[in-house]
Amino acid sequence: MSRSTTRRKVVRIRDGVVDERVDSLAVESPLTVRLGRADQTEQLEAVLTTMRTPGNDIDLALGWLVSEGVLLTPDDVTEARECRRLDDDGNVGETVEVRLRTDRRPRARLSWASSACGACGTIAIESVVEEAKQVSRGTGLTVDRDLVLGLPDQLRKHQRAFSASGGLHAAGLFDAEGSPLCIREDVGRHNAVDKVVGWAFREGLLPLDRHVIQLSGRASFELVQKAAMSGVSVLAAVSAPSSLAVELAEATGVLLAGFVRGGSMNVYTHPDRLLNVEGQ
Amino acid sequence: MSRSTTRRKVVRIRDGVVDERVDSLAVESPLTVRLGRADQTEQLEAVLTTMRTPGNDIDLALGWLVSEGVLLTPDDVTEARECRRLDDDGNVGETVEVRLRTDRRPRARLSWASSACGACGTIAIESVVEEAKQVSRGTGLTVDRDLVLGLPDQLRKHQRAFSASGGLHAAGLFDAEGSPLCIREDVGRHNAVDKVVGWAFREGLLPLDRHVIQLSGRASFELVQKAAMSGVSVLAAVSAPSSLAVELAEATGVLLAGFVRGGSMNVYTHPDRLLNVEGQ
Repeated sequence: MSRSTTRRKVVRIRDGVVDERVDSLAVESPLTVRLGRADQTEQLEAVLTTMRTPGNDIDLALGWLVSEGVLLTPDDVTEARECRRLDDDGNVGETVEVRLRTDRRPRARLSWASSACGACGTIAIESVVEEAKQVSRGTGLTVDRDLVLGLPDQLRKHQRAFSASGGLHAAGLFDAEGSPLCIREDVGRHNAVDKVVGWAFREGLLPLDRHVIQLSGRASFELVQKAAMSGVSVLAAVSAPSSLAVELAEATGVLLAGFVRGGSMNVYTHPDRLLNVEGQ
Repeated sequence: MSRSTTRRKVVRIRDGVVDERVDSLAVESPLTVRLGRADQTEQLEAVLTTMRTPGNDIDLALGWLVSEGVLLTPDDVTEARECRRLDDDGNVGETVEVRLRTDRRPRARLSWASSACGACGTIAIESVVEEAKQVSRGTGLTVDRDLVLGLPDQLRKHQRAFSASGGLHAAGLFDAEGSPLCIREDVGRHNAVDKVVGWAFREGLLPLDRHVIQLSGRASFELVQKAAMSGVSVLAAVSAPSSLAVELAEATGVLLAGFVRGGSMNVYTHPDRLLNVEGQ
């Protein structure tokens, strides 16, 4: 039994037959990230509370801070540790405390909100693009189309908790040859991406300009922003992208593929970086 | 062409054949909700910026305010209107302005965050349950199992934009006889639920203690909280619930069914309110 699933009795109705059985559920619980300077002695500041599936919490915190533009290199972090705390009612809470050498702070609770204007409701794509450009990036990886077409099968092979609970999203990081480097599952797809990016950050792999991230579900604006802030070259999703996801991928140089399944896909941005698509 | 989808040229690779075609995308764009008192003359306060699919924006704002415990009856609202504003760069932004007779304010940007403890990372299920109890509720609707089993088909029949884009979640409100009252689609499943609840709020149907809400995807803690705050009796999802979703449904008296598809389902909470499950 992993920490990512739990068991519960359910009434199952199948083909007209009613029975009671024990079912696996994806675990969802809150994690708070608290941030401070290396030399800070007073209380650290809570900068994020997210519902997530337990596991790889430090990577989740680090990846989220990368997507917020707070972390640029592993040298920025002096300490990152998991803590369990009790509240007044005796509930156990989970937090990650991160201490920095720098004074950078996340500008908003959700990354895209930092570029939204509360007064008029617009979102400045330009400011997100500017932020993503701080992440050094080459000309962008060119990949073979068959490599991308093969990723969902690889992702699924590594999705253990999903097969048990059916309730988890996954994100996988692959190198330029299509080999899996890190695959993470979570009830929130943004968390799965943060965990993958946080792992890569710790390994010193950022910017991910020779890498591909594969998602088990849809691609929203928020996910493309996280990908762009990690410097990733190629983002592939099993399901549909949104309009704003495509717009941001176009502007930040991310090759965005959707509906990657059953040997087919749609390429929404930068199709010139896909090899082996001629002469069919 | 509805406002909920847009068109874009994509490179499609299918069965080894590469072609260019025009594809439908689900629209994702920001909406800001601004709140004030009926007699307030100064600038209203931005209380939410959410990425959503345009359409039924007033319902989205009202439903979100219901889930935050700000709105209890239609009498609380003196005015709700859509506005388009220009920012300094000439981008058009969309906002909904809501004016209240009361002084109630949302306690947090995301509803569950209001019950999370930033210092210790716990979440007080009790406080969410207390909030949901303010919504008057009877003993809970009993429903026939075949009624619930038939809802996904009805939901799909009304999901127009999904068939075009493949990128939208849906939520549907049904009465005690299983007739559809309101079905909404959105890139965010929480928005789809807010739009349905906002519609019901305007129609004076709250609390929804003789109603069922059906979701096209998974059921998270946040979605169960929104359901509970609307007073809904039965929440049914096509996919898996999370552990915390089940825990909250149990505590707030919501009958939660998951994996409702192909004539089968799992009932996670309050199975005693399901009729026609004996003598199989």
